[in-house]
Amino acid sequence: MEDLISELEKDIEKIRELKPMVHHITNYVAMNDSANATIAIGASPIMSFAHGEIEDLVSIASSLLINIGTLDEYIIQAAMLALNVAKKNSVPILLDPVGSGATKLRTNAALAIINEGVDVVKGNHGEILSLLGKEGVVKGVDSKAKIDGEVVRDVAKKINSIVVATGKEDFITDGERVYVMYNGTDMLGKITASGCMLGSVIASFMAIQGNYLVAAIEGLACYNIAGELAAEKSEGSGTFKQKLIDELFNIDAKKVFDRLKLKRLL
Amino acid sequence: MEDLISELEKDIEKIRELKPMVHHITNYVAMNDSANATIAIGASPIMSFAHGEIEDLVSIASSLLINIGTLDEYIIQAAMLALNVAKKNSVPILLDPVGSGATKLRTNAALAIINEGVDVVKGNHGEILSLLGKEGVVKGVDSKAKIDGEVVRDVAKKINSIVVATGKEDFITDGERVYVMYNGTDMLGKITASGCMLGSVIASFMAIQGNYLVAAIEGLACYNIAGELAAEKSEGSGTFKQKLIDELFNIDAKKVFDRLKLKRLL
Amino acid sequence: MEDLISELEKDIEKIRELKPMVHHITNYVAMNDSANATIAIGASPIMSFAHGEIEDLVSIASSLLINIGTLDEYIIQAAMLALNVAKKNSVPILLDPVGSGATKLRTNAALAIINEGVDVVKGNHGEILSLLGKEGVVKGVDSKAKIDGEVVRDVAKKINSIVVATGKEDFITDGERVYVMYNGTDMLGKITASGCMLGSVIASFMAIQGNYLVAAIEGLACYNIAGELAAEKSEGSGTFKQKLIDELFNIDAKKVFDRLKLKRLL
Repeated sequence: MEDLISELEKDIEKIRELKPMVHHITNYVAMNDSANATIAIGASPIMSFAHGEIEDLVSIASSLLINIGTLDEYIIQAAMLALNVAKKNSVPILLDPVGSGATKLRTNAALAIINEGVDVVKGNHGEILSLLGKEGVVKGVDSKAKIDGEVVRDVAKKINSIVVATGKEDFITDGERVYVMYNGTDMLGKITASGCMLGSVIASFMAIQGNYLVAAIEGLACYNIAGELAAEKSEGSGTFKQKLIDELFNIDAKKVFDRLKLKRLL
Repeated sequence: MEDLISELEKDIEKIRELKPMVHHITNYVAMNDSANATIAIGASPIMSFAHGEIEDLVSIASSLLINIGTLDEYIIQAAMLALNVAKKNSVPILLDPVGSGATKLRTNAALAIINEGVDVVKGNHGEILSLLGKEGVVKGVDSKAKIDGEVVRDVAKKINSIVVATGKEDFITDGERVYVMYNGTDMLGKITASGCMLGSVIASFMAIQGNYLVAAIEGLACYNIAGELAAEKSEGSGTFKQKLIDELFNIDAKKVFDRLKLKRLL
Repeated sequence: MEDLISELEKDIEKIRELKPMVHHITNYVAMNDSANATIAIGASPIMSFAHGEIEDLVSIASSLLINIGTLDEYIIQAAMLALNVAKKNSVPILLDPVGSGATKLRTNAALAIINEGVDVVKGNHGEILSLLGKEGVVKGVDSKAKIDGEVVRDVAKKINSIVVATGKEDFITDGERVYVMYNGTDMLGKITASGCMLGSVIASFMAIQGNYLVAAIEGLACYNIAGELAAEKSEGSGTFKQKLIDELFNIDAKKVFDRLKLKRLL
């Protein structure tokens, strides 16, 4: 287990030294928060969906994040253009299928993007379930769906991608091994764009760590534990959000190792 | 008077237990803040104007908020689609006519939406005046217009909706009875999206309280008093915004009753 | 030197008394932060790019800010419409050429806007360099480019505008005199929309101070020094952002004069 996250100290340093560019095609609600989370962990966010510059930007990016939280036709086309450029330039791709399962538009958009090939899919339990063709119990963009390690592994196999399924417990799998992480705090569910910021943090690790399973675990661990630390210092969801960014800004490997609850499930 | 707000304790609990989905078609400036305010009071925000999913989402929402703060043709069409679906499914509708009176585009959009039939209209004094066909003195999206209880009642009668007119004093009317609330703080005018967040809080109460006059008063009272509490703990408009969300997150009926200054005017 | 900023006390008071309307055509990431920064310094922000109301709004605005941080065709057209209206009504114009040099789309958009005539251009070193036709070393929307007073003056001469070039050192020039300011903090580089908020603050001064070189220096000084004060009270980039808004809200001429490090370079 420990080897999975043994490079964390080095990888955090690497992000902060290289400040890799993480291209975001993301939703209007999360743009600002995701940019701040990306900077806080040490990377350089860029947010653009203008068709006329996707190629210029994505071809020099170190990773690409696609988040379908507020869709329209222009953004879907931008995502498809970006995917194409990323694949040609071997830029790793993370998909955050926000609300997949809640509407056909979103489920179809998520599946169409996955069909092009992505490296990591991060969603809540319901969103991940919806990718299996089963109806997730998705309420708004939140989720109450039950899930287990085997189901998550089935999704990963089906879509041929690493999968991070967040909820009360967070599952991470490459389609063979399945890990579960017990970190985090209920407060992460009390702010908008929480999952979107997690996506940004994982994409920041993917920009410098070639093993994307490791990158996913590193990003998830940093984010969850920053959340735990922030929750201890907050008086409500307003200050929690700012403290969460503070804690990401100040995160280090020692803080993570002191609190990490990760185990192999399958 | 007290009977109007006697259900507050129960209604706050109900929101936090049911987490009703409040569909927002709102402006880009306010999206993030409105989502956080909605979660803080206990409901589940969803922000989407994609034509392809409006029906799927609004048909299962518990209330619909339409805010015209940043308009374009696509968003106006989305609002019209959403209105239609809400009416078919008896989903209560709140309109926030941001900037109505400042430009013809906004005044016309507000009147067109009202023409379809809405349950609550919440705006500042100038915006509410503009709905009467009188020119509101609207400066940017803020307002300096003078208003009184009778005028607000005239607006409510004309547009056949409950009206909440915010300003130094807040008026609430169903077109017959007129109430005035003296709570709040100048600091609410020192942050952007303040009125938009109030709309989200009222729409959260409309999602679980079938008497929309009561819902409007409950939401306004919680928001104003959260503002008062936040102002006492803030050192400027930056921390005020976060504390406001904290106080919404921690609001309860006792805090509201301790401070509420509500009276019947007409 | 001191005469350049001798009107600061009066100008801050004037903004807070007149609350001039600053029309923004800006990017989705920065909208909320820029609105809050504008209110914090004392002005009234309006954010709209709807073609149908640009004329109504810009014709009564006291200044116009155009920021190309998230471009699409609709926004570019809105910017061109707004420029036109501003020129007809003698509304001063600030351009923030975010990412110019990073993509052809942005460089071309910046140059097209400049070609119409603007009063102040504010960008980071790389963005400003890109306006000279030299390739700026632009990474994402940040910049590592080296620059000096003469180059900035060349840009100002070429584009016939006051130029503010921000970075480790901030240069301000009207194409003849060149000033350098040594204020600010690294923390301003750790939050998104930092440069965008600076643009809003400068545009707020342009709304009430007819000497735009003075307005640029005043806005830059207030912003940098608010940043210094905020950094001393922050525990990370999350709280820094809120404290920055607090400090803008509480800024006064005395705080600025106590810390200002401004000198004439050329």
